[in-house]
Amino acid sequence: MQYCKMSQEQLREELNVQKTRYDAYMAKGLSYDMTRGKPCTEQLDLSNGILDESLVADVKTEGGLDCRNYGVLTGIPEARALMGAMLGVPADQVIVGGNSSLNMMHDLLAFFMLHGTSQSGKPWCKEEKVKFICPVPGYDRHFGVTQSLGFELIPVDLLPDGPDMDRIEALVKSDASIKGMWSVPKYSNPTGYVYSDDCIRRLASMPTAADDFRIMWDDAYTIHFLGDAPVEQLNLIEACKEAGNPDRAIMIASTSKITFPGAGIAAIASSPANIAYFTKLLSNQTIGSDKMNQLRHVRFLKDREGLLAHMRKHADILRPKFQAVLEVFDREMTGLDILSWTKPEGGYFISIDVPEGCASKVVAMAKACGVAFTPAGATYPCGVDPLDRNIRIAPSFPPLSQIGTAIEVLCICIKICALEKLLNK
Amino acid sequence: MQYCKMSQEQLREELNVQKTRYDAYMAKGLSYDMTRGKPCTEQLDLSNGILDESLVADVKTEGGLDCRNYGVLTGIPEARALMGAMLGVPADQVIVGGNSSLNMMHDLLAFFMLHGTSQSGKPWCKEEKVKFICPVPGYDRHFGVTQSLGFELIPVDLLPDGPDMDRIEALVKSDASIKGMWSVPKYSNPTGYVYSDDCIRRLASMPTAADDFRIMWDDAYTIHFLGDAPVEQLNLIEACKEAGNPDRAIMIASTSKITFPGAGIAAIASSPANIAYFTKLLSNQTIGSDKMNQLRHVRFLKDREGLLAHMRKHADILRPKFQAVLEVFDREMTGLDILSWTKPEGGYFISIDVPEGCASKVVAMAKACGVAFTPAGATYPCGVDPLDRNIRIAPSFPPLSQIGTAIEVLCICIKICALEKLLNK
Repeated sequence: MQYCKMSQEQLREELNVQKTRYDAYMAKGLSYDMTRGKPCTEQLDLSNGILDESLVADVKTEGGLDCRNYGVLTGIPEARALMGAMLGVPADQVIVGGNSSLNMMHDLLAFFMLHGTSQSGKPWCKEEKVKFICPVPGYDRHFGVTQSLGFELIPVDLLPDGPDMDRIEALVKSDASIKGMWSVPKYSNPTGYVYSDDCIRRLASMPTAADDFRIMWDDAYTIHFLGDAPVEQLNLIEACKEAGNPDRAIMIASTSKITFPGAGIAAIASSPANIAYFTKLLSNQTIGSDKMNQLRHVRFLKDREGLLAHMRKHADILRPKFQAVLEVFDREMTGLDILSWTKPEGGYFISIDVPEGCASKVVAMAKACGVAFTPAGATYPCGVDPLDRNIRIAPSFPPLSQIGTAIEVLCICIKICALEKLLNK
Repeated sequence: MQYCKMSQEQLREELNVQKTRYDAYMAKGLSYDMTRGKPCTEQLDLSNGILDESLVADVKTEGGLDCRNYGVLTGIPEARALMGAMLGVPADQVIVGGNSSLNMMHDLLAFFMLHGTSQSGKPWCKEEKVKFICPVPGYDRHFGVTQSLGFELIPVDLLPDGPDMDRIEALVKSDASIKGMWSVPKYSNPTGYVYSDDCIRRLASMPTAADDFRIMWDDAYTIHFLGDAPVEQLNLIEACKEAGNPDRAIMIASTSKITFPGAGIAAIASSPANIAYFTKLLSNQTIGSDKMNQLRHVRFLKDREGLLAHMRKHADILRPKFQAVLEVFDREMTGLDILSWTKPEGGYFISIDVPEGCASKVVAMAKACGVAFTPAGATYPCGVDPLDRNIRIAPSFPPLSQIGTAIEVLCICIKICALEKLLNK
């Protein structure tokens, strides 16, 4: 029965039931952590073969370059090809960097601040104001980068087939200070939503007042499917080229959730003009990234087929964890009309919306009961969810055995908060 | 006999002798490369043990942290301790980064541009002008970083015991736009000079008009001795603290020329306030650097004793190469009064001064004869040596068997240019 249709007495009765359940869990002294989208140990073990010394017994690239020594600013050709195959981009439009895609994204935007883009020589730090569109809910560290650089962040709702394009088109058409936007186009953090091809075409072709509008296309989960293969998606770089805006798209990805988060390789892909420009800027910053680790990755993962085969092993570990979350939501929440939750087919998160004004309280209650979730608001710019209703669930790290209980505790907290809200009406 | 004391006829005769020698080498079709301070293959092989999988069979730090996963922004404690032991700085004043110290230096200065320093919240990009002192001859990539950020570079002569301190003190006392300086304090690139303790005390204590003056102390060759142990040198961080300018010093180092240039670890060290400030800025840029590579380094190099033992093996390979260069200079150039050269006890370079106006021509002549040296001017800001006389010799990479010949060709070119200059007088 929907809570909103219950009588006051029914609500009070139900509240007592849920409080009794909550107290029972309190007594258990749980200590569960579902805060971070970290791979679990079992997932990390899938890549231990990358540590085999035999992989780097030959320290040279196919071209005969000794990966131990200096050089090769944009990454060894084999690694550029591998990351290009992952992103659907030719190797020469790819730059392979160090272990962190966040680092590459931050540095690109810092470069734009200091030097402008390939299209405009005017450094963004010389602009009166720089604004960036942030689909919400989204990834806190994206927002953090642009916040640290002093950008004004404009939240735009992320819908199941991509961000609210009507709103974005209206915004960017008239405001030249809007210099770009964040996006996690596939299995988005935290909703798992996948941008539709129609949305991608509109992003690629929309007129923008800023002549150097940039889409930070963080394809973090591009092959991170939970089934057997990744969903097909229009390639933004190709779409932008076709639409006559070739330099608009900047793709970013890494192997952090393929091999090791602490020791993977990251890459960016873009138009030839952007890659040439970034290479010039990079030449002031470094002589080159860790080529031995690039070599390890190439020899361990091999090619796109190797990548997909490896990701199927990840999916086998992650799928039951996602299912465990969804099963509890189905069981506990169906028909109550107090919770909506996403059912991702990839990525690392499930996003839920609790009744307005309840998210912070729910997370605090769960934490008091020994189950830690990502802080409420983290999925919004500056950590503030104006409706205080979104919570990110990260099922990857905890053992499967804990997930059912953790989500049950969460459901109880949601019910209590929803009931108290209804009773105080 | 000194060339300047020769008669016109003697000069012409000597020129014929040297031209004949030059032509003989031309006929040999040499192809030698002495352009870059790269370790040679034999040196790289010294560190192949770092690739042993047994080193990372246990993926956890002493504190139990899985180095494969996310986290630990400032580096694993063991790596901070190792790099601290190398630099003579407590581990908690060290941040270990990725594979490139140049990258860390660039990013620190980019942070200062965008966010200011720990002492001044005013971003340097909001200043009318930012100037930086560059001891010359010096390292081209240092100059390149500050040039790319739009700084005005002020060259100051590097003398055998450090930069011209009278000049530096006078400059920084009155000009608040001078925000800092570069330095390679030990076995400097390219002279091999070592800053004296007196110079270091003056750098630490000199009054500066800028309240956030920063010394980029690139201790790139801190344990890169050619003898049996590194020369002792006053610690700049301690000297700055003692002088009441604790936040002035930023040390930088890497294992690029200890293990692998393409796959080492880099670090910065500074005051507690600076480290706290950098950590805050870093938290926007990355989740952490490659911890598996940090683990490899810690387990392979162990501690300061391990580092020094390893560097003695490098010295055994490099020493004969430096000696081969110096022997040819002694044999060819003694008494002619046309060349001065340094006799480093460490580092990667020998610096020579040819007659004024001759350096570019000498390098071009040697190149035409198949022997490539670092381009003349590279050791000066913007690649311009105003007296066109300094050339950097990098003996590390070519095989020992080539060095004698390469330097002989260089000497012949110097003689020809010097003689032609004297004859045109």
